[in-house]
Amino acid sequence: MIEFNLEEKHQIFPMHEPLHTESKKEFQLERLVLFSDAVFAIAITLLIIEIKVPDPKNEVTEIAVVQGVVKLIPKFIGFILSFFLIGLYWTVHHRMFGFLVNYTRKLITLNMIFLLSIVLMPFSTAFYSDYLMPDRIRLITPLVFYVGNILFIGIMNFKLWGYIGNPKNNLAEGIPHGPFIKQAKIRSLAVPLIFCLMIPVAFFAPVQARYIPVLIPIVMKIIQRRFKNKIQPAHF
Amino acid sequence: MIEFNLEEKHQIFPMHEPLHTESKKEFQLERLVLFSDAVFAIAITLLIIEIKVPDPKNEVTEIAVVQGVVKLIPKFIGFILSFFLIGLYWTVHHRMFGFLVNYTRKLITLNMIFLLSIVLMPFSTAFYSDYLMPDRIRLITPLVFYVGNILFIGIMNFKLWGYIGNPKNNLAEGIPHGPFIKQAKIRSLAVPLIFCLMIPVAFFAPVQARYIPVLIPIVMKIIQRRFKNKIQPAHF
Amino acid sequence: MIEFNLEEKHQIFPMHEPLHTESKKEFQLERLVLFSDAVFAIAITLLIIEIKVPDPKNEVTEIAVVQGVVKLIPKFIGFILSFFLIGLYWTVHHRMFGFLVNYTRKLITLNMIFLLSIVLMPFSTAFYSDYLMPDRIRLITPLVFYVGNILFIGIMNFKLWGYIGNPKNNLAEGIPHGPFIKQAKIRSLAVPLIFCLMIPVAFFAPVQARYIPVLIPIVMKIIQRRFKNKIQPAHF
Amino acid sequence: MIEFNLEEKHQIFPMHEPLHTESKKEFQLERLVLFSDAVFAIAITLLIIEIKVPDPKNEVTEIAVVQGVVKLIPKFIGFILSFFLIGLYWTVHHRMFGFLVNYTRKLITLNMIFLLSIVLMPFSTAFYSDYLMPDRIRLITPLVFYVGNILFIGIMNFKLWGYIGNPKNNLAEGIPHGPFIKQAKIRSLAVPLIFCLMIPVAFFAPVQARYIPVLIPIVMKIIQRRFKNKIQPAHF
Repeated sequence: MIEFNLEEKHQIFPMHEPLHTESKKEFQLERLVLFSDAVFAIAITLLIIEIKVPDPKNEVTEIAVVQGVVKLIPKFIGFILSFFLIGLYWTVHHRMFGFLVNYTRKLITLNMIFLLSIVLMPFSTAFYSDYLMPDRIRLITPLVFYVGNILFIGIMNFKLWGYIGNPKNNLAEGIPHGPFIKQAKIRSLAVPLIFCLMIPVAFFAPVQARYIPVLIPIVMKIIQRRFKNKIQPAHF
Repeated sequence: MIEFNLEEKHQIFPMHEPLHTESKKEFQLERLVLFSDAVFAIAITLLIIEIKVPDPKNEVTEIAVVQGVVKLIPKFIGFILSFFLIGLYWTVHHRMFGFLVNYTRKLITLNMIFLLSIVLMPFSTAFYSDYLMPDRIRLITPLVFYVGNILFIGIMNFKLWGYIGNPKNNLAEGIPHGPFIKQAKIRSLAVPLIFCLMIPVAFFAPVQARYIPVLIPIVMKIIQRRFKNKIQPAHF
Repeated sequence: MIEFNLEEKHQIFPMHEPLHTESKKEFQLERLVLFSDAVFAIAITLLIIEIKVPDPKNEVTEIAVVQGVVKLIPKFIGFILSFFLIGLYWTVHHRMFGFLVNYTRKLITLNMIFLLSIVLMPFSTAFYSDYLMPDRIRLITPLVFYVGNILFIGIMNFKLWGYIGNPKNNLAEGIPHGPFIKQAKIRSLAVPLIFCLMIPVAFFAPVQARYIPVLIPIVMKIIQRRFKNKIQPAHF
Repeated sequence: MIEFNLEEKHQIFPMHEPLHTESKKEFQLERLVLFSDAVFAIAITLLIIEIKVPDPKNEVTEIAVVQGVVKLIPKFIGFILSFFLIGLYWTVHHRMFGFLVNYTRKLITLNMIFLLSIVLMPFSTAFYSDYLMPDRIRLITPLVFYVGNILFIGIMNFKLWGYIGNPKNNLAEGIPHGPFIKQAKIRSLAVPLIFCLMIPVAFFAPVQARYIPVLIPIVMKIIQRRFKNKIQPAHF
C-alpha cells in the first residue's frame, strides 16, 4: 500500500522540501490539531446515528415500545463503550500534541493513519453492537473486528508517542524527564491488549467476555504505580 | 461503569501526573473548547437528517405532497425544540468555559460525559418526535426517554458549574461575586425539572403536556428576579 | 414560540447579567464564530448524503447504470444550487462577523436562529430535488418549501445586519461609511426575493421557473452599481 | 452556471468593495482555513457511513458473517483509497494556505468550488466501491465518475496554486524561489492523470486497472527528482 510508506525516503512529500516560515508554523500546527479534533468530534457523534428509533409498526402499545427500547440496550452498550474509547484517545491525543512545537510530513502521515483508525469506529461499533444480542453473541467475527480496530488505534497511538517522543525528531518540548514516553507507550498498548483478551475468553464464555474492559482502570492503576516517582516535570 | 469513576483517586489519568508547560496551556484549553463546539455543532445539525422527505410513491398529487408535509409537523416540532435546547446548552457552555483559565483531567472527563448527553439528543429527538402523532401520543416511553436525556444534560451541567465554580479547584477567573454559581446551578436543573413535569401530566392529558416547555422563559424570569441585585461583577 | 422572544426584556439570559472579563472576550467571540462555521460546514457537507448511489438490482448493464446516473441529475442540480447558496451565506457571515468586536446574548440568539435556517437546507434541498423529475416538477409544494427556507435565511441575515450595523448596539468596528449596511440589508433580501419569483412563474411554466436563479448575479450587479462611489472605507 | 463566474468583473461581490480592517484580517483568514478544515474533516469521516454492517438475516452462522465481511472488502478498498486521497489534498491545502497572508473574494470562491469537489467524494467513493464486486467490475460508468471527481479536485487544486502563487495577486509570503509553484501545479494534475489512465485500461483489464494508483508514489518521486536542487527557500 502506498499509504504506509512512512519511512522518510519513501515519503511522497519528503522533508528536504522547503517548509513554511517560522512565523506561520504555530498556526500550521494548530490547524493540524484542529483538523484532528474535527475528525474525532464527527466520529464520536456519528456513533449515535447507528441507533435507530424503535418502530413497532403494527401494534403500537406501551409494551411494544418498551420492548423496542430493551432491544436497543446492546446498541447503547456499544455506543457508550466506543464513546469513552474515542474520548480516551482524544484525551491522549490532546496531551500528546500539547508537547508539539514542530511538525513534519511524516507526523502528518502518521496522524492521518491514526485518524483513519478513529473514523473506522462508528462502523466497528455498529457491527459489534449488532451481535451483542443473546442469539448472536456466540459469533466471534464482530468481536474480532472490533478488537482489531481498537488494536489498530493503539498501535498508531504507540507509533505517534514513539515518533513525537524521540528527541532526534526535534518535535516536542517540555516532555517530563524519566520514563514518561515509555509509560505512555505501554499505556497505548495496554488498552488494546485487554480488549484482545476478550477473544479467547469469548470462545468459552461469550457473555462474560464482554465484561473484560472493566479491567482497564485496574491495569492502568498498576502501570501508574510502577512509574510513580520516576517521572519528573521538565525543567526550563 | 469505569467511565463514572470521577473521583480524583479513581481517575485513569490522575492529577499528580505532570501536565503541559504554562505556555501551551492556553491553546490546550482552547482545544478542549473547540472540540466541544464541534460535537455541539454536529449534534445540532444531525437533528435534521432524522426528517425524511415525504415520498407519496403511487399518487403524486399536490394534496398527497401537502399531506406528506403535514405528517412531518411533529418531526419539525421536535427538531425545533431540540435545536433550541442544544443551542441553549451551548450558550451556557460558552459562558461557563469563558471563565476557565485552567483545566484538569477531571474537567475533561466531566465535559466528555456532558458531551455524551448532547450526542444522545438526535436519537432522543427522533424517538420523541416519532411518537407525537395523534395515534401514538398517548405512549409515555418516548417522552420519558426524551425527558431523561434532558435531565442527564441538566445534571452534567449542574456538576460542571459546581466543579468549575469551586474556588478550591482553581480553574476559573472573573466569576461574579455573590450567588452567581448558585443561580447557574439552579438554572441548570430548572429546565430539566420543567420537562419532568410533562410525564405525570401526560398520563391525563398527553397533548397538553407537550406545551409545558412554554413555562421555561417564565420560570427563568422568576429565578432571574430572585437573584437580581445580589450578583456583582468580579473586581480585578 | 419561546425561541423567538428576542426582545431584550424577554430574553432568557438578559443583558444586565454580568458578562466575561474583557481579556476573555476576544476568544469568546471567536468561539461563537467557529461554532457557526462548524454548523455551516456540516450543513454544506450533509447535502451529499441525500444522493444515493444508483443500484440497478436486477439488470446490471452499462446502460442501466448510465440511466441511474441520469436520474440523479435533478439531485445534483439541487445539491450544487444549495451548496453555493450555503457557501454564499457563509461568505456573507464571514464578512459580517469580521466587523464584530463585541457580542450580546441577543446576538447569540439571532445567530442561533440564523443557523437553524441553514441547518434546514439539507432537508429542503432533498425535498426540492426529489420533485425536479419531469413527472413531478409540476408540483408546487416542494418549491414553496425550498423558497420558504431561503426566505427564512434571508430574513435572519437581514436582521443580523440590522442588529450588528446599529451603532447603538456597539458591536462592530470598521464598518465602511455611507449606505454600506443598507446595501448589505437589500442584498440579504434580494436573493430570496428572486427565488420567490419562481413560485408564480412555476404555475405556468414549471420547468422554466427553475432557471430564475440565473438572474441573481445580474440583480446583484445592479445593486452594486447603485451603491458604487457611495461607500467609503471607515477611517481610524 | 452562475457559480463559475470567477473573473473579477463577474464576481457577485467584487474586490473594490471595502474589506475588513487590517487588524481583523488574520482572524478572517484563519476562519476561511478552519471552515475548509471542517469540510475536509466531515467529508473524510462521512466515507465510513456508506459501509453498512453485514446482516445475514436468516442464517446467523459464523461463516455467513465472515462472508458478509468478505463482501465488504471492495467497500473498504474504496474507503481507504478515498481516505488517503482526501488526506493528501488536505495536506496540500494545509501547505498551500500556510503561505497565505491575504485573501480576496475570488480566493474564497475558488476555495468553495474546491471544497465542492471534496464534498462529492463520499458519493463518488460509494458509487465506485459498489461496482468493485467481480460481477460488476466490468462496468465503466462508476469508474469514470470516480476518476472525474478526482480530476475535478486536481483541476481546482491546480487553479488555487496558480492563483495563490501569482505574485500579482499579493496573497502569499515565503513561497520558495525557483519552480516551486510550477512543481506544485504539475503535482496537482499528476495524481488525477494517473487515475485517468485507469479508464482505457479498464476496457481490456477491468481488475488490473484498479492497481494503477500504485504508480502514484513512483511518479511523484520522478517529479520530485526533476525539481530537486532547483527550489530554494525564500529569503527574508
